[in-house]
Amino acid sequence: MTITITAFNRSPDGGKGLARDTRVRWALEETGLVYQTRLLSFEAMKEPAHLALHPFGQIPTYEEGDLVLFESGAIILHLAQHHPGLLPVDANARARGTAWMFAALNTVEPPILDLTCVKIIEGDKPWAQDRLPLVVARIRHRLDQLTMRLGDAEWLDGAFSAGDLTMVSVLLRLRPSGILAQFPALDAYVSRGEARPAYQRAFAAQWAINGPPSP
Amino acid sequence: MTITITAFNRSPDGGKGLARDTRVRWALEETGLVYQTRLLSFEAMKEPAHLALHPFGQIPTYEEGDLVLFESGAIILHLAQHHPGLLPVDANARARGTAWMFAALNTVEPPILDLTCVKIIEGDKPWAQDRLPLVVARIRHRLDQLTMRLGDAEWLDGAFSAGDLTMVSVLLRLRPSGILAQFPALDAYVSRGEARPAYQRAFAAQWAINGPPSP
Repeated sequence: MTITITAFNRSPDGGKGLARDTRVRWALEETGLVYQTRLLSFEAMKEPAHLALHPFGQIPTYEEGDLVLFESGAIILHLAQHHPGLLPVDANARARGTAWMFAALNTVEPPILDLTCVKIIEGDKPWAQDRLPLVVARIRHRLDQLTMRLGDAEWLDGAFSAGDLTMVSVLLRLRPSGILAQFPALDAYVSRGEARPAYQRAFAAQWAINGPPSP
Repeated sequence: MTITITAFNRSPDGGKGLARDTRVRWALEETGLVYQTRLLSFEAMKEPAHLALHPFGQIPTYEEGDLVLFESGAIILHLAQHHPGLLPVDANARARGTAWMFAALNTVEPPILDLTCVKIIEGDKPWAQDRLPLVVARIRHRLDQLTMRLGDAEWLDGAFSAGDLTMVSVLLRLRPSGILAQFPALDAYVSRGEARPAYQRAFAAQWAINGPPSP
């Protein structure tokens, strides 16, 4: 059955791989599935045809036969549940791997997205400079807690899982700010994720679309 | 196997049922499972014994034999996957129900939590009043999109699911602000959730702990 995802026709990050299609590409590559990509402009994302697939007008979506999914977390979990390579076999370990996905998306990512809010979306507001340290402090608090839990382990709970894929993807958003580099254990954890051949293929696939044009 | 969850010994919302243990209680009640609750003070939540269960020092946690889970979304999904009543049987419909869980937690809840940030956590900051309309506009944008998708359906995708349970729980946070009442279709959707006997039992269970003491 053909798998089709959607992605930006030009990601606003200029190829850093931070748009959410990269997470889904990575999951697809870990499972070895073949997929095709349909590229969308910002305008097309707000049109009825795309809103029928994604009620919030975002990317990525996932189509596989009759199934249409939105939310990158849901897509990654769907792949992890139906294909080997992203969740362990043991039922309890599967539940824990899934818990790390939710932790990444619901506990760690919101303060990190607030950094984009204070720096870019509200970057021209008079409060931006005064509010920035509060936002950074919230991020650092979460990173301290995550550092404690990771300890000197390679991954968050046993073997690499969809939980790590999601957490690494979320933490990668912090690299441009320099904050990730202040947490060496997490920086190394993220680097282990980036070193995986499946991540490399996913990154290259989005770079081919979003990277600077060849001279 | 005994199920034990954790909750505040005194929820900061004074019994409105907005702490995340209520969502898990609701899911447990929908599946008919019996559970016990261990109450924690704010201080106890930051101690090593609880951090061993929950790396971010929050409630709820879920213990069932050897399994320890954190993140309310992960706990609800675990219950939905192993007990009837929270996800449909059809595989594609299950995936879509799960997608609504992620949408509730990762797309709809973050701007709603930002309302707590601007009103309470940063309520004494000089920018709070000027920033409030921006935060409200982001919430309204998501509620407009959600209203469009819900249409005149009873639930988001066929029968009531863990996706609705999570979305209703997230939207309930907006009721005290008056914003939910400005979206009648969503207000009615939330009321349908609150009317379910399982929700009523969950609410009563947290109210017994957090509501005002009997005179």
